[in-house]
Amino acid sequence: MPDSLFPAPHPFLQHCQAALAQMRQEGRYRSFAALAKSRRDFPRYTDSTGRRITVWSSNDYLGLGGSDVLAAAATAAIEAHGVGSGGTRNISGNTPLHEALESELAALHAKPAALVFTSGYVANQAALGTILSSMDGNWHVFSDEKNHNSMIAGMKNARAKSIFRHNDVAHLDALMAAAGPGVNKLVAFESVYSMDGDIAPLAELAATCRRHGALSYLDEVHAVGMYGATGAGVAERDGVLDRIDIVQGTLAKALGCHGGYVAGPAEVIDFLRSAAAGFIFTTSLPPALAAAGLASVRHVKGATALRERHAERAARLKAAFQAAGVRPMPSASHIVPVPVGDAALCREVSRLLLEEHGLYVTPINYPTVPRGTERLRFTPTPRHDDADIAFAAQAVAAVLRQVGLLPNAP
Amino acid sequence: MPDSLFPAPHPFLQHCQAALAQMRQEGRYRSFAALAKSRRDFPRYTDSTGRRITVWSSNDYLGLGGSDVLAAAATAAIEAHGVGSGGTRNISGNTPLHEALESELAALHAKPAALVFTSGYVANQAALGTILSSMDGNWHVFSDEKNHNSMIAGMKNARAKSIFRHNDVAHLDALMAAAGPGVNKLVAFESVYSMDGDIAPLAELAATCRRHGALSYLDEVHAVGMYGATGAGVAERDGVLDRIDIVQGTLAKALGCHGGYVAGPAEVIDFLRSAAAGFIFTTSLPPALAAAGLASVRHVKGATALRERHAERAARLKAAFQAAGVRPMPSASHIVPVPVGDAALCREVSRLLLEEHGLYVTPINYPTVPRGTERLRFTPTPRHDDADIAFAAQAVAAVLRQVGLLPNAP
Ligand SMILES: Cc1ncc(COP(=O)(O)O)c(C=O)c1O
Ligand SMILES: Cc1ncc(COP(=O)(O)O)c(C=O)c1O
Repeated sequence: MPDSLFPAPHPFLQHCQAALAQMRQEGRYRSFAALAKSRRDFPRYTDSTGRRITVWSSNDYLGLGGSDVLAAAATAAIEAHGVGSGGTRNISGNTPLHEALESELAALHAKPAALVFTSGYVANQAALGTILSSMDGNWHVFSDEKNHNSMIAGMKNARAKSIFRHNDVAHLDALMAAAGPGVNKLVAFESVYSMDGDIAPLAELAATCRRHGALSYLDEVHAVGMYGATGAGVAERDGVLDRIDIVQGTLAKALGCHGGYVAGPAEVIDFLRSAAAGFIFTTSLPPALAAAGLASVRHVKGATALRERHAERAARLKAAFQAAGVRPMPSASHIVPVPVGDAALCREVSRLLLEEHGLYVTPINYPTVPRGTERLRFTPTPRHDDADIAFAAQAVAAVLRQVGLLPNAP
Repeated sequence: MPDSLFPAPHPFLQHCQAALAQMRQEGRYRSFAALAKSRRDFPRYTDSTGRRITVWSSNDYLGLGGSDVLAAAATAAIEAHGVGSGGTRNISGNTPLHEALESELAALHAKPAALVFTSGYVANQAALGTILSSMDGNWHVFSDEKNHNSMIAGMKNARAKSIFRHNDVAHLDALMAAAGPGVNKLVAFESVYSMDGDIAPLAELAATCRRHGALSYLDEVHAVGMYGATGAGVAERDGVLDRIDIVQGTLAKALGCHGGYVAGPAEVIDFLRSAAAGFIFTTSLPPALAAAGLASVRHVKGATALRERHAERAARLKAAFQAAGVRPMPSASHIVPVPVGDAALCREVSRLLLEEHGLYVTPINYPTVPRGTERLRFTPTPRHDDADIAFAAQAVAAVLRQVGLLPNAP
């Protein structure tokens, strides 16, 4: 009976059980829908019973992940190079594909250099973490209150940190003035905020950074591929790329692939390459993902028609919701959140849409958004057609009525 | 002249320049060899001039990354599902392949459950970070002094931390006794230490953990696929799987794929799934990597002959080095480090092996290993044949003589 040698359950196991029970009670225990993404049939997915579902929650915003362009690039790279890279970038995991991808990303953002990480999350965490611990930590970081968890993780150990009100340039200005000179300043913000769909005033933010001699660090994760003449993001659209110091992005959303990156001044990128632990001590991206990412960036530069169609789809969905009596949150982007305001209800609405209407929309609950602001987040793609949009608007209105969030039709 | 609006270069840019200059001066500026991995011809790679190189530094230890098993699984998944998953696990990025992979990994390590992360680095950082900040941070963590950077990253914000001497169970025991009861204890260690090639005394470590009521957290990154009857790692080989609480591993080394994981008690895994930011807020692994990982784990369980061949190759390389007068560091595993002891010399030996002998072995310098212990790290695979081994031993001996690290033959 070797088990009798062991002590009683470790208190941590009891802690886990209690935490999980608490989540269940609050209605925010997460169960993931198991949905197989269909390459040719996107945005249709197959659920575990084999049913064909229309997904409205993918961050493969343009549907490129299933395109022949990406599939062919990835498949050819697997045939030539196999699956895993087999090493860190320094230890035999650096291929010409990785280097070409970095050049292409630098060019996309009109920066001298770029560095690829295994994800956008790691890019933010490692780049911000490394910068803010350089120079003996003599940094004061200014962070938009709605910044993504990956940036928050990168700023966690910053010696001085101020949170400015969301998109509030005057507040940022006042905080920087109060911090005074003599400390290195960095300001971190996003362009498209993915849970609300609003867009930051990049020109004003950049000007404020310059005035205070602060470095600007911009997360374009939800904008790359989708905004600007060549899909470089909102900074390109707004003509301020040359006034943003460091741009961070992902290959895993509109680019349809996987991996993350930062682009910026050559010496900063070379410093991160040499010093960022989250870059150094991990296996490099598989060659097939570097190849697909490269193909995607090249493709997306000229994909103006796709971007226009995408914007038109988002506008049409918003209009269809309004017409059906559903009030989406105001959004300046392709992201269309519908407020629910309660975790359990949010799950229930999502469940009803799936079970009764064959639509999948993820319930967005705490900790992804603050409690009380739970929502359904719709992300239309160029592949959602008119019928999809009309059907979704009717189904959402019906379910919201069913759970009492919309008044019954008179 | 919009440039004139901008301030003088930010001091951070000067800091980067100075840091890079310092690295160059110390001979540890990192330039990555650009080497294309060849799927069918592994361990041959192609350098930027098109030359065929034999690589001795891959962590694709068994050469599975290029196997038909993995390539076919990945290619089929790309054809069916496209490249990127398009979402976090919670937001439409959870496919049946991810769930099957997790079940398979749990079974491999004889644990109730497992959770997949985007890399082994993220698995360690997120799992340890989340555990140690739970229970109001009332933890005391005990860490082997040679633990990998990813574990160190996960323990960075631990409230109480003790470093025990490498593989020194008595020291660990004393430190835990000194910490006393009333605090939750976790002990973090590896099985195979990848830069030295030595193996931890898992049975003693596990027993010591039990005696102090501490959770044990074992990184099997360099052992998964290679040790134990079914390739579950050293814990399986040593018969102590049931006495280790949490096992962490990667798909990116012997399994030839990409991604990382932890396996352990169901409630711990479910807690991490629900609470670990580095798991929640990032795009899930591409379906093709989940498929290839799954195929690899299934394949590796029965790959006893491959494991035996691998061990035999490592023994043969060590013997060939000895016979040629090269003294590798003592190693109980498949990792064969050859000491050099100086960063610039280490680079130079690596350069000479590449340019004059067509062999690639990464120079391992600070910060990967302590200064003064710089080395070349050889990782023989089942695909290195007798001629490769004989050639490498002669070439290494010749180059070490050339730079004065071995006496000239009499
Ligand atoms: C704003 C933002 N930044 C970074 C990330 C992380 O990117 P990735 O999914 O590539 O890890 C996300 C989402 O996942 C995000 O929403
Ligand atoms: C001991 C150890 N743990 C974790 C990792 C990280 O694994 P991955 O390469 O999958 O990020 C590595 C190496 O990269 C390692 O050597």
